[in-house]
Amino acid sequence: MRPGGVPLAPLRPLELAAEGLRVLDQRRLPGEERWLLLRAPEEVAEAIKGMAVRGAPAIGLAAAYGVYLAAARAGRGEEWLPAVERAAEMLLSTRPTAANLRWAVERMLARARSLHDLAGEEAARALREEALLMHREDEAMNRRLSRLGADLLPPRSRVLTHCNAGALATGGYGTALGVLRAAREQGKEVEVFVGETRPWLQGARLTAWELSREGFPVTVISDAAAGRLLALGRVDAVLVGADRIAANGDVVNKIGTYTLACLASRHGLPFYVAAPWSTVDLGLPSGEGASLEERGAEEFGYSLPLGVGFWNPVFDLTPAELVTAVITDRGVAFPPFTTSLRFLGGVVPCST
Amino acid sequence: MRPGGVPLAPLRPLELAAEGLRVLDQRRLPGEERWLLLRAPEEVAEAIKGMAVRGAPAIGLAAAYGVYLAAARAGRGEEWLPAVERAAEMLLSTRPTAANLRWAVERMLARARSLHDLAGEEAARALREEALLMHREDEAMNRRLSRLGADLLPPRSRVLTHCNAGALATGGYGTALGVLRAAREQGKEVEVFVGETRPWLQGARLTAWELSREGFPVTVISDAAAGRLLALGRVDAVLVGADRIAANGDVVNKIGTYTLACLASRHGLPFYVAAPWSTVDLGLPSGEGASLEERGAEEFGYSLPLGVGFWNPVFDLTPAELVTAVITDRGVAFPPFTTSLRFLGGVVPCST
Repeated sequence: MRPGGVPLAPLRPLELAAEGLRVLDQRRLPGEERWLLLRAPEEVAEAIKGMAVRGAPAIGLAAAYGVYLAAARAGRGEEWLPAVERAAEMLLSTRPTAANLRWAVERMLARARSLHDLAGEEAARALREEALLMHREDEAMNRRLSRLGADLLPPRSRVLTHCNAGALATGGYGTALGVLRAAREQGKEVEVFVGETRPWLQGARLTAWELSREGFPVTVISDAAAGRLLALGRVDAVLVGADRIAANGDVVNKIGTYTLACLASRHGLPFYVAAPWSTVDLGLPSGEGASLEERGAEEFGYSLPLGVGFWNPVFDLTPAELVTAVITDRGVAFPPFTTSLRFLGGVVPCST
Repeated sequence: MRPGGVPLAPLRPLELAAEGLRVLDQRRLPGEERWLLLRAPEEVAEAIKGMAVRGAPAIGLAAAYGVYLAAARAGRGEEWLPAVERAAEMLLSTRPTAANLRWAVERMLARARSLHDLAGEEAARALREEALLMHREDEAMNRRLSRLGADLLPPRSRVLTHCNAGALATGGYGTALGVLRAAREQGKEVEVFVGETRPWLQGARLTAWELSREGFPVTVISDAAAGRLLALGRVDAVLVGADRIAANGDVVNKIGTYTLACLASRHGLPFYVAAPWSTVDLGLPSGEGASLEERGAEEFGYSLPLGVGFWNPVFDLTPAELVTAVITDRGVAFPPFTTSLRFLGGVVPCST
């Protein structure tokens, strides 16, 4: 509901239509709600690379729909599977960091391979169903993890978040912001602070827009002001999403997350990470092994004096020792994460 | 020298001319080198409030010149001293945080009161000399503290700084950036990283410009990227200026400084603060008592969705326990600062 009582449609950043994949162009928000129509997998790849769609789970879903679009255009017969595989490879190469992208594309590929004998319209229809199912599952997982996470928050919560781990970053409802939504649905009072998230301003542009349209009190701060905010005792918990979580609980997330984790630790505040299980990569022993994307200087939006360079790392690595809990749809993992994540993953824990 | 060998005039952000005070408009940098001519103390106050001149020592000097301009316009006789005092009061109210502003205005006022019997042209001339002396002293102090600070840096130093504690922030040469200049003069290799310093971008606009014109290798990062930079082992020391230093070593400086100090501590890196002695306020037992300015949302340069607010604190407080050394023109103070700063201040240390 909007504060005024007008019902508000759930926010979803992408939806499949008869003509193709419709994507809310997040580069235009909050000024303009413009939808792109993507008909070919190459267009989906461009939208991911260009950040029209962003957020680890949303990127995964967009790529899954991209595989379907490739399957629908790949004709029939022996050429079908190789064409689908080429499109999958291209979609995988768009952003190197998120675990969900690989997870989603590989799930679509496995389905495609199982359909090999049906190559053509029937197989494409099945891939369409698979992508739609993944989308529904993603939203359902977000709602489940959000309920679990909301139980961790006190009745009156002042929460600092970072970047946008909201409906806009997922199939719907959101992860970190989903937890805030669920807390409100539980009757809790939630006040939100968010860093601008330079250079792309996901916090100021997306999170502020997404939460304020639902009536959350939101305050934007410069990323550098987080330390002062915590020192003044104005925050009860720090809560972020994740792009990849290693088996030991190390967290890869938007640049600046590690700094917030250090600050939370110094101030004795909980540092929560909320993400669907597909973000957890039990095959990655620690975050040190993750490939962390760096992007170009143009994202800063201004030029520097001659001879001065920008360094624009997109992600950083928060060591598990700074993480209070990892909130997933399979349950909430507490330290030691090597055991708790393996347990949630259904792997029998080592006896050590 | 410029890299090409062309001699480079020392950078000074303000200079007294026959017609008034010339101030380099730092709002226009790095795009344009525009000088303002300020003839009245009200114009100086506007330039300080509007951030045409910024940086604690430079603000103090501008205000000192402002007191002189008031004295030169205040006529003669009994009206002279009250007019000078009113101008001093107005100049004091421009920015609440820096110690140097009060120090500089009070020094000018003390001089004015000592000249009371000469009220008029002769007294104004003496105040002019006093302001010019303070300016020369400031630059000399900066050179002295910079030499002392440079001794702390290794022969090859990769330094992270914040905001602009350079020539632009002082009477000339700079404090934190002065230390880097002095290190180079000692034959050391210096590479500099600087956070953008949102929302005003002092790091990206001023520090990058000031250092790159002298051929320093400079890289600008988003403020949120500092944690990642340190985690990658790409920095040997963090070095910042200060707006006020309490008797116990607590440091008030640009928002974001506290976060850098936390990160330096976590990574076992030295965290140095460089400032002229006038920044040290032995009358302030700890930083908790300092008044920290907050500024308006317009500095962010964009608007937010309806109902979302900005919080724009300009300064934060770094507790003394995170400070490795305070570098001043009177010497370098190490912990415990309560003793070392009192010693440098010429106060006999307590026996405790």
